[in-house]
Amino acid sequence: MSCVFCAIVAGEAPAIRIHEDDDYLAILDIRPFTRGHTLVVPKRHTVDLTDTPAQTLAEMVAIGQRIARAARAAELADATNIGINDGRAAFQSVFHIHLHVLPRRNGDKLAVAKGMVLRRDPDREATGQILRDALARIDANP
Amino acid sequence: MSCVFCAIVAGEAPAIRIHEDDDYLAILDIRPFTRGHTLVVPKRHTVDLTDTPAQTLAEMVAIGQRIARAARAAELADATNIGINDGRAAFQSVFHIHLHVLPRRNGDKLAVAKGMVLRRDPDREATGQILRDALARIDANP
Ligand SMILES: [Zn+2]
Ligand SMILES: [Zn+2]
Repeated sequence: MSCVFCAIVAGEAPAIRIHEDDDYLAILDIRPFTRGHTLVVPKRHTVDLTDTPAQTLAEMVAIGQRIARAARAAELADATNIGINDGRAAFQSVFHIHLHVLPRRNGDKLAVAKGMVLRRDPDREATGQILRDALARIDANP
Repeated sequence: MSCVFCAIVAGEAPAIRIHEDDDYLAILDIRPFTRGHTLVVPKRHTVDLTDTPAQTLAEMVAIGQRIARAARAAELADATNIGINDGRAAFQSVFHIHLHVLPRRNGDKLAVAKGMVLRRDPDREATGQILRDALARIDANP
């Protein structure tokens, strides 16, 4: 299987899962820009904004919004960037559409601007657990 | 009126409009990172991901997707970043929620990474017209 996200969806490649439902998976980015950097991935393979249904985008963003709220609630984030890189020139690197959810902290501006970013989380499992727990609390009190 | 986007919605501040319907406005960013950098703004004021309804986000992203397609069709873009900066630490500067649609060109990577960006479009009116025309063609052939 040549698509790494399809392989993760199929259970044939590892990932730390933050959220899963019938149609979507949210996983930790293996090269995080910040702690808790999460990708929302539709289980059905499409490539980018040119071939992904608007309804799928809407559902991806709704999940991303919940993860952003969870990251704030868990104090992993003071703020969040959510976004889609649509095409190679926009830094898309896996050609299976995904939404980035990037927890941001006050004072990390220069670090990101200069490209001196985390790219490696020393405790991925703990980060995943923090986000899953916060999401469960958000979902219990929407 | 202290919110610049509410002032634009009310017609009390100028903007180059790419799209308008009953509930949304899309305008050119006055400090574009790239040519055609557009903001999708709900007419109803909310601040960020914590207070904006999921339905509003879905509609913002649907409009952003159409603008991304229009930018590609008009050859303003080889690719597109779409995203929301949710909170000050995520570079949100106007506290009325908006979706960035950032047309990208092959080869502009280093320029953006180094922060050597356009931030000023020498022909904003022409850029607006190109995007409006391309959107009209997209809408005629969805
Ligand atoms: Zn895939
Ligand atoms: Zn406003």
